Amino acid sequence: MANKKFTIGLLTSGGDSPGMNPCIRAVVRAAASHDAQVIGIMDGYEGLINGEFRPLGPRDVGGIMQRGGTILQTRRSKRFMEKTYQREAIRNMNSAGMDGLIVIGGEGSLKGAHALAEQGIKVVGIPGSIDNDIWGTDMAIGVDTAMNTIMDAIDKLRDTASSHGRAFLVEVMGRGCGYLAVLAGIVSGAEMVITPESPVTVEEVAKAVEDAYLRGKRHAIIIVAEGASLKVVDLARAMDEMDVGFTTRVTILGHIQRGGSPTAFERMLATRMGVKAVEALVSGQTDVMAALQGRTMGLVPLTEVTNKTRSINPEYFEMAHILSR
Amino acid sequence: MANKKFTIGLLTSGGDSPGMNPCIRAVVRAAASHDAQVIGIMDGYEGLINGEFRPLGPRDVGGIMQRGGTILQTRRSKRFMEKTYQREAIRNMNSAGMDGLIVIGGEGSLKGAHALAEQGIKVVGIPGSIDNDIWGTDMAIGVDTAMNTIMDAIDKLRDTASSHGRAFLVEVMGRGCGYLAVLAGIVSGAEMVITPESPVTVEEVAKAVEDAYLRGKRHAIIIVAEGASLKVVDLARAMDEMDVGFTTRVTILGHIQRGGSPTAFERMLATRMGVKAVEALVSGQTDVMAALQGRTMGLVPLTEVTNKTRSINPEYFEMAHILSR
Amino acid sequence: MANKKFTIGLLTSGGDSPGMNPCIRAVVRAAASHDAQVIGIMDGYEGLINGEFRPLGPRDVGGIMQRGGTILQTRRSKRFMEKTYQREAIRNMNSAGMDGLIVIGGEGSLKGAHALAEQGIKVVGIPGSIDNDIWGTDMAIGVDTAMNTIMDAIDKLRDTASSHGRAFLVEVMGRGCGYLAVLAGIVSGAEMVITPESPVTVEEVAKAVEDAYLRGKRHAIIIVAEGASLKVVDLARAMDEMDVGFTTRVTILGHIQRGGSPTAFERMLATRMGVKAVEALVSGQTDVMAALQGRTMGLVPLTEVTNKTRSINPEYFEMAHILSR
Amino acid sequence: MANKKFTIGLLTSGGDSPGMNPCIRAVVRAAASHDAQVIGIMDGYEGLINGEFRPLGPRDVGGIMQRGGTILQTRRSKRFMEKTYQREAIRNMNSAGMDGLIVIGGEGSLKGAHALAEQGIKVVGIPGSIDNDIWGTDMAIGVDTAMNTIMDAIDKLRDTASSHGRAFLVEVMGRGCGYLAVLAGIVSGAEMVITPESPVTVEEVAKAVEDAYLRGKRHAIIIVAEGASLKVVDLARAMDEMDVGFTTRVTILGHIQRGGSPTAFERMLATRMGVKAVEALVSGQTDVMAALQGRTMGLVPLTEVTNKTRSINPEYFEMAHILSR
Repeated sequence: MANKKFTIGLLTSGGDSPGMNPCIRAVVRAAASHDAQVIGIMDGYEGLINGEFRPLGPRDVGGIMQRGGTILQTRRSKRFMEKTYQREAIRNMNSAGMDGLIVIGGEGSLKGAHALAEQGIKVVGIPGSIDNDIWGTDMAIGVDTAMNTIMDAIDKLRDTASSHGRAFLVEVMGRGCGYLAVLAGIVSGAEMVITPESPVTVEEVAKAVEDAYLRGKRHAIIIVAEGASLKVVDLARAMDEMDVGFTTRVTILGHIQRGGSPTAFERMLATRMGVKAVEALVSGQTDVMAALQGRTMGLVPLTEVTNKTRSINPEYFEMAHILSR
Repeated sequence: MANKKFTIGLLTSGGDSPGMNPCIRAVVRAAASHDAQVIGIMDGYEGLINGEFRPLGPRDVGGIMQRGGTILQTRRSKRFMEKTYQREAIRNMNSAGMDGLIVIGGEGSLKGAHALAEQGIKVVGIPGSIDNDIWGTDMAIGVDTAMNTIMDAIDKLRDTASSHGRAFLVEVMGRGCGYLAVLAGIVSGAEMVITPESPVTVEEVAKAVEDAYLRGKRHAIIIVAEGASLKVVDLARAMDEMDVGFTTRVTILGHIQRGGSPTAFERMLATRMGVKAVEALVSGQTDVMAALQGRTMGLVPLTEVTNKTRSINPEYFEMAHILSR
Repeated sequence: MANKKFTIGLLTSGGDSPGMNPCIRAVVRAAASHDAQVIGIMDGYEGLINGEFRPLGPRDVGGIMQRGGTILQTRRSKRFMEKTYQREAIRNMNSAGMDGLIVIGGEGSLKGAHALAEQGIKVVGIPGSIDNDIWGTDMAIGVDTAMNTIMDAIDKLRDTASSHGRAFLVEVMGRGCGYLAVLAGIVSGAEMVITPESPVTVEEVAKAVEDAYLRGKRHAIIIVAEGASLKVVDLARAMDEMDVGFTTRVTILGHIQRGGSPTAFERMLATRMGVKAVEALVSGQTDVMAALQGRTMGLVPLTEVTNKTRSINPEYFEMAHILSR
Repeated sequence: MANKKFTIGLLTSGGDSPGMNPCIRAVVRAAASHDAQVIGIMDGYEGLINGEFRPLGPRDVGGIMQRGGTILQTRRSKRFMEKTYQREAIRNMNSAGMDGLIVIGGEGSLKGAHALAEQGIKVVGIPGSIDNDIWGTDMAIGVDTAMNTIMDAIDKLRDTASSHGRAFLVEVMGRGCGYLAVLAGIVSGAEMVITPESPVTVEEVAKAVEDAYLRGKRHAIIIVAEGASLKVVDLARAMDEMDVGFTTRVTILGHIQRGGSPTAFERMLATRMGVKAVEALVSGQTDVMAALQGRTMGLVPLTEVTNKTRSINPEYFEMAHILSR
């Protein structure tokens, strides 16, 4: 057909993160402004394999901006790592007339995107991960909202910690990456931060808590990244045996960190990334990811994204330390 | 001294609950309107034993209404159960010229208040407990705020539960009392509620979750009171072994339930109770607790409060069930 | 048809209030538990006149509990006051096989409900009004959420008022009724409250503000009900001419008071009222309104609701005054 | 005295913005890590003229991070523009032994800082302004929190707008600068944005609203910057005379935009700026402002800051337009 519209497949994959919905909205509306159309793929790569498609027009994405989660649902798909299922996916994309694909997700999902690109599919990735562990972008979708959720939770814990003169060990998400923990430490005024990147001993933690007690603080907050080698429960047990001035309590924030209405920063980032991804795709680019680079929105190659490891600004560790005085 | 002012001692005791600060404010300002004065006692009964007192005037309680926790700090005091220490406390109250005492706290703290009243001290209690497990009052201070905190957390979990098609087991506070769990179940649209008062088997839970799956729901939320015989972690393990349609995740809300800025209802309740307690004390009443009774604020005897057990309106269990359809 | 299900028409009418959605959900699911079915009527009485109906099943009301507004939309309908249009409405109800009607709305909407009841239609009302101006119920749907929205806004204003040493005049909703203003005054720690029920002069306001200044307060908050005879803008102008210590700023909170995710109290109230209304209707009752009466949920005759005027507990005015010291 | 500590004066000036408190905290604690000390100056430049000083140690800034406003209070000082009063200020600084000054504030306040620097005082500025109208920094302190407050308010308005099928005209802050309006437009999904930088006619607004109506939207949100030539009230009146499909309502958000607990982004930005300003001052720099430049924290000359005008990324106007489809 001569005037068939450029057609974009769109999926969300991996762990969900707040901001995926405003990003979906931006992709759909930016596509409309390029006279392109969008087909939503349900359940991530599983839906691509199974052909669970539905058209997404500008009216279908009204009122979703303020909602957490993803209207396209998401799933982790192990079998998509296999060639057989990738071939199935490509076949489905072709039947549906998709000219390109936008994948919103974390590192594993972007690996899948890269695999498709290598087989000739035009693919643009968008980084979605509350952990902020994706190389190449200053911020991924979900980080700012998760950070605010963590901060609000710790503000609440501080109320009760102060009233009782207690130390709280707070576990936050971040399997391989302590970004959330370090920044949460700074913005929540924690006495100490424990991350995979900066291992500490039980004795060091105990000393930091005791110091806070001696300096006259009415509570101590220790933030521990999920992926740190010291586990909160073990740490609490050990500290209760020593005498550090405060009694100890544990809170594991868990999945509430993935939910909630996206913040303003999140919606803005998600929107800019969605707009950028559409522009890239309709202008013929592929195998790249939309990325926040300082104040501009750029594109980085997916091969680099999937091969390199993001590290945390060392200045932040220093800052967390200074601020806890 | 002929015109010595009526002097009220004020302490917060036991687990802290949001709303204690607006209650402190109300006691201080209501006292001023009765031309009485307030002495704040730090750290609950411990401060009464140790004589940690400080005067509290109307200006000292400005700007505390919106803050969680308690500016008087709180502590659990085991030794106050002993006569020796109660005598020490009474001696301190007399030295400081206190004509009466207001105690804001949970059941254990109100027992302590009753013990003092039996020894001739004029005491009025105010119920503070996020669990709402205190007999004689419709609501205790802290319940409404805790309920909203729980609800907000579950609203966040639902975002991620829906996006992934998952079941969430959410543990909320409530050692001997399922009030928070049942009401959270209703206001959060949970599929099932598990309380100390209404034991269920693992099989019943599994069936409820599977039913939700079969009826086409995109997630299932099960709320479990801390004091229920089934524990969330065991339940999750058991359900993963059965096949209930959804995969299962656990969240233990923990101490964030005790924090946060008090809600409007909370501030109103805390204020009315503070005003009532002062009125009672200056008019010579003792051994009673301020209590919300329908739409009026009344007084109930502390002996009854400390001997009777509050039960949950059975209509609420039914309602939680009907609403989950 | 022998086994035709009992069919309930459901509409929301008048000004929207947060909590209408959880009430809709409760009506639909409670109906299902009585083996009845629900037909949603769009746009209030306008939709009843125009026959804009859609069936509402338990799955249709999933995920609406946390959303403000009303999925059935609402409108004020002047023409429904006329017999002609009421007849049209009744005709449509009969064609659709409705056995009864539930109306969620304010005083005007409940008058409409009563008019239908007088013509033989089985009708049960549910009070929805953020102003809390409906006779017969302690609380209407929307009040608790609006109160929290107002309180949060004033907590924000206090930040800036304190930093600058300013007086703020804050207009809140309440055309004929100062309920929101008085309670907001108590829970926000306002220096003064101005309502339709308790007129004051400019001089009295100026004196209260000056007193707060002299007592060493860092700001003054004056809450003014929309329906008070003194208008915020005029008052501000007058106060700027006098010298009251603080400079004056005006904030009109406006329609944000109608929005927002319903609070826990709101969802509970809306749910209980929805369940009660369905019970009443299927058991043959008519011309009544579900009402919170202390701790129980009761029914009051619509004739009384539409003829009597709610007054505010005078104790609250006194309390607002005492607390502002 | 041989080993007198380096002493930093610290003031907040101009309109307050959320994030000033975490910035104060960061300055005090960063100073401690450089073995310097901080003297807090009350009420901005007025306090500098009047010598209202108080020492600020690490314990004095505990628990202020989550609070809006500024514990140092702020004021606009006209007389500080005069040489006489600047001389008075310098005299006070010298008596108090201040080696340098940190000023947190908007453009006017930074002009004052520059004036002092020209007279030999070592001064470092920190940009504080919810309008984001300060040249040289990507973001000023207060912007992110204000943006989230605006967004939350509009999310609430949308609830009621959707339920009634209405158009809302929302005035946000921004006297000379439409930054808040444009970004609010994007993150709130507004149909149109009206700023000082991009004037429109009443007819264009009416057309945009009517278009939204025709495209089947259930509401229309128009955001208007305070400094735009079209005023909301006039616009509303004009639109009510035309027939645009929706009826119109006006909301002026006002001073709530200045308050609220700082967001995570805000606290991080404020902290980094505070740390940077202290580093700059103790290392001998002067007449500069801490500035967010992409992902790094830099310094820009105050002469440029006070002479140049910030403009909005034109990409954002385009984006606001595309997204409203």
